[in-house]
Amino acid sequence: MSETLVCETRVRVRYAETDRMGVVYHSNYLVWFEVGRVEWLRQMGFSYREMEEQEDLAIAVVDVHCRYKAPARYDEELIVRTSIKNVRECMIHFLYEVVRVNDNMLLAEGDTTHLVVGRDMKVKAIPDKYMSVFRKALGR
Amino acid sequence: MSETLVCETRVRVRYAETDRMGVVYHSNYLVWFEVGRVEWLRQMGFSYREMEEQEDLAIAVVDVHCRYKAPARYDEELIVRTSIKNVRECMIHFLYEVVRVNDNMLLAEGDTTHLVVGRDMKVKAIPDKYMSVFRKALGR
Amino acid sequence: MSETLVCETRVRVRYAETDRMGVVYHSNYLVWFEVGRVEWLRQMGFSYREMEEQEDLAIAVVDVHCRYKAPARYDEELIVRTSIKNVRECMIHFLYEVVRVNDNMLLAEGDTTHLVVGRDMKVKAIPDKYMSVFRKALGR
Amino acid sequence: MSETLVCETRVRVRYAETDRMGVVYHSNYLVWFEVGRVEWLRQMGFSYREMEEQEDLAIAVVDVHCRYKAPARYDEELIVRTSIKNVRECMIHFLYEVVRVNDNMLLAEGDTTHLVVGRDMKVKAIPDKYMSVFRKALGR
Repeated sequence: MSETLVCETRVRVRYAETDRMGVVYHSNYLVWFEVGRVEWLRQMGFSYREMEEQEDLAIAVVDVHCRYKAPARYDEELIVRTSIKNVRECMIHFLYEVVRVNDNMLLAEGDTTHLVVGRDMKVKAIPDKYMSVFRKALGR
Repeated sequence: MSETLVCETRVRVRYAETDRMGVVYHSNYLVWFEVGRVEWLRQMGFSYREMEEQEDLAIAVVDVHCRYKAPARYDEELIVRTSIKNVRECMIHFLYEVVRVNDNMLLAEGDTTHLVVGRDMKVKAIPDKYMSVFRKALGR
Repeated sequence: MSETLVCETRVRVRYAETDRMGVVYHSNYLVWFEVGRVEWLRQMGFSYREMEEQEDLAIAVVDVHCRYKAPARYDEELIVRTSIKNVRECMIHFLYEVVRVNDNMLLAEGDTTHLVVGRDMKVKAIPDKYMSVFRKALGR
Repeated sequence: MSETLVCETRVRVRYAETDRMGVVYHSNYLVWFEVGRVEWLRQMGFSYREMEEQEDLAIAVVDVHCRYKAPARYDEELIVRTSIKNVRECMIHFLYEVVRVNDNMLLAEGDTTHLVVGRDMKVKAIPDKYMSVFRKALGR
């Protein structure tokens, strides 16, 4: 991933996120992806909350893929690296890496595909002010 | 609790609900209380979903108390026993017991207090059709 | 999927599983997949809890994929259809469909890949008593 | 609460923590209490993870109480203020306040009671090195 387009966010593993195997339960990585995605948008100058509330634009998840390389454990500090892979008229595609801070180990990588929809769950075209920024992030 | 007014609902402990201590993470009992509460309402003839969607009535939690007696473990079947403790103009008070099916052991007990509100989060009086049923459940 | 090898489990959408978009938050489908997987094993005659506790066999998730077709909503009853796609020396591959009960609509489909490991997170060969049943479920 | 003994930790509300009422689902405050508690211990010089792993000391929750004053909403930054209320031979009692950063509004307050136990869930006396620090935090 290109340095300038990647957003790095930190999360610390919560007790509630572990399971009885002693490691993080796998669905929590999807929550961290969401944390990373929102911070990526913030870094681009956008508040996802305002997108939803003021412009009736939501990015609904339509596809999620995650590959788990090594388990995250309780109280570990992690970095979620988020970048954009692609954008089309009404679709956004994000990439993620979850890395442990203390040894820089890659714990998981994933990607999510989103449709831009309104409150009525109908698909919408991404407005220009977002599209131009997303395209710039893609180096186009 | 009187036999007729108590709603018994079953839940099975999910892997996601355990933590690295090997037992259920304590916040999940509040989710089970909610499951019990909704089934109690259903047993009274009401759908909480319809209350929210068709009558703009939500029961917002304002107070929660839970005492943990013994840990629930993965894959155990549990009974959530829900009853109503009190009802007032715009407030409902529920009681809960979480019991393990295979040995009838009491694992937790709790209570929740709710204000009836609309979508605007403003307090509303409980409509008569609910109030009369709730009072009957209280033996009044 | 072949009728005899598919395990159907019911879940009802909990309030805690919804998000402010008014639909189920997407990571919860992974939890339901786990519920389906455990019931599939039970239908085959195995308790996943006993596998972990008595035989030191855990099935760690190494890959998850989920495609979301239509949103699940609060209080809806859903069926999780679980089947096995493949099994190898130390790896199992499951398939899932999440279907809404009242209109039989397919809401999501996914698959998970698992490595069989011990408490030490080291890979183990699947013991024969499981392997023979898994192979039978695959029609081999 | 006395200035020096209170630990302030920040959390930002995640989308996954909201529910279809548009506010944070109430069980998540218990998770934030746990985040606050662990940071309070860290501020006192202790790692809860090390307590569990190296000294076989866990602080099991036996009682939780939370009063909700005003709803937290998506993407809001919150402060969890944690302090110790009391400590006895094998019991610790914590207090919490959840405050919204941008207007300093008190959203919730609560308290949790914990028994110190080993991996076998049997009660243990709190070792001196912790007890002396906890007592100091209480101003004794």
